Amino acid sequence: MRISFIGAGRVAYHLAKALGSQHQVVQIYSRTFEKAEWLSLQVQAQAISNFENINTDIDLMIIAVSDQSIKGVIEQISPYLKDVCIVHTSGSTHLNVLAKTHDKCGVFYPLQTFSLEREIDWENTPLFIEAANKQDLENLVYLANSLSNKLYSYNSEQRLSLHLAAIFACNFSNYCYDMAKQIVDAKHVDFSLLYPLIQETANKALANNPKDMQTGPAMRGDENIIQMHQEMLKQEKREDLQEVYALLSQQIIQRHTKL
Amino acid sequence: MRISFIGAGRVAYHLAKALGSQHQVVQIYSRTFEKAEWLSLQVQAQAISNFENINTDIDLMIIAVSDQSIKGVIEQISPYLKDVCIVHTSGSTHLNVLAKTHDKCGVFYPLQTFSLEREIDWENTPLFIEAANKQDLENLVYLANSLSNKLYSYNSEQRLSLHLAAIFACNFSNYCYDMAKQIVDAKHVDFSLLYPLIQETANKALANNPKDMQTGPAMRGDENIIQMHQEMLKQEKREDLQEVYALLSQQIIQRHTKL
Repeated sequence: MRISFIGAGRVAYHLAKALGSQHQVVQIYSRTFEKAEWLSLQVQAQAISNFENINTDIDLMIIAVSDQSIKGVIEQISPYLKDVCIVHTSGSTHLNVLAKTHDKCGVFYPLQTFSLEREIDWENTPLFIEAANKQDLENLVYLANSLSNKLYSYNSEQRLSLHLAAIFACNFSNYCYDMAKQIVDAKHVDFSLLYPLIQETANKALANNPKDMQTGPAMRGDENIIQMHQEMLKQEKREDLQEVYALLSQQIIQRHTKL
Repeated sequence: MRISFIGAGRVAYHLAKALGSQHQVVQIYSRTFEKAEWLSLQVQAQAISNFENINTDIDLMIIAVSDQSIKGVIEQISPYLKDVCIVHTSGSTHLNVLAKTHDKCGVFYPLQTFSLEREIDWENTPLFIEAANKQDLENLVYLANSLSNKLYSYNSEQRLSLHLAAIFACNFSNYCYDMAKQIVDAKHVDFSLLYPLIQETANKALANNPKDMQTGPAMRGDENIIQMHQEMLKQEKREDLQEVYALLSQQIIQRHTKL
């Protein structure tokens, strides 16, 4: 397939590199020409920073930009690409946002966390596809199969709930690690001491119901320790962490005394 | 060494089984005799549920009970064990709690999350030891070396900060997984779809500074998505999750715009 990208951020970077090995990446668009060129050089594509220069001889256009920009982008590029399928890569944007403007549209959402510094294990990355018509869906299935064998055809409502869950499981758990690092850093204690614990906590959640794996003072209803920890955070003037500690502990207590 | 335990919970279970292969576990005490016997049978020890039956011919007594019970236990057993070193296994209880009552005291704290269903990788579990006198410290070093090669001599303040950090990195991240599962369960979406994401998020935190690995709408300052997610949780009548979402998003935004 001949594929172009709008966007040269983390998702575009990883998708273009992965798809580029089996398909042809034609153009990369970014408002910042340098960004477009940086990625284009790596996948032998052409860099553009003006929609008027879009090459219309493509099979698929992938919009990989921030959610808030998707609506503006589809409105601007749709006139150039009447007969081309255009997809976005977002977990949290409804297919309708494209369908209102462009008939041949779809979603190609990889459920993974993307950093420039890290390789993606595509084979094990779930891909969620959705399309407004059958022919485009078939093409997306073909494309997705070339990347991963974990392919799911979900509607927008299911995909949105999965993305919301991912924010809790990924973004918020990462922020928990970040808060933990701030706490030990303040006492010159090595954060890497927590690595086995972080690893085991994640492994447990993959093998069991996380609810049953809950441990800690809140789970045990140990009010003395909870109070001591609040006091420690207060003395360190970390009201932000204290607030998180209080809210999550209270909810864990509630969840485990409902039984 | 000849070692006895007060407590037959998760920590006592894993420690007794691990130490029992190289040392002799003499007695297991629990207020509930059945619990004491359940564990004793697995490590060829004697079960007791009355402090008057404590065998005083031991080298070490390990108190593995809830933090709030440690003070009461040391006061009750100290008279029987004047010349025996007594340690607790808690990350969050100061050595002083023992030292006030018993001279030969210490701490033997394994930084790990314990479930009955899961084996512990002791070799990679950091052990934190502390003792009121040099001879007892040496004995604890000897004991700890028989379990793990990650041995640390930390004072109570450092240990307490590490344990507080562990609550964020482990208990709270597990609660994030739990909340994520509740969200997908409500839409009949399979929680296992999030496994690669959970795994990769943990792996990232082990290889990099978690602050630099933060992703998601809050990190990007994407107010539209944040508002949409709040709305979704409100419609599902999950004010509890909405509150967590709001607080953590607000803090992530603050942390990443301070730059």
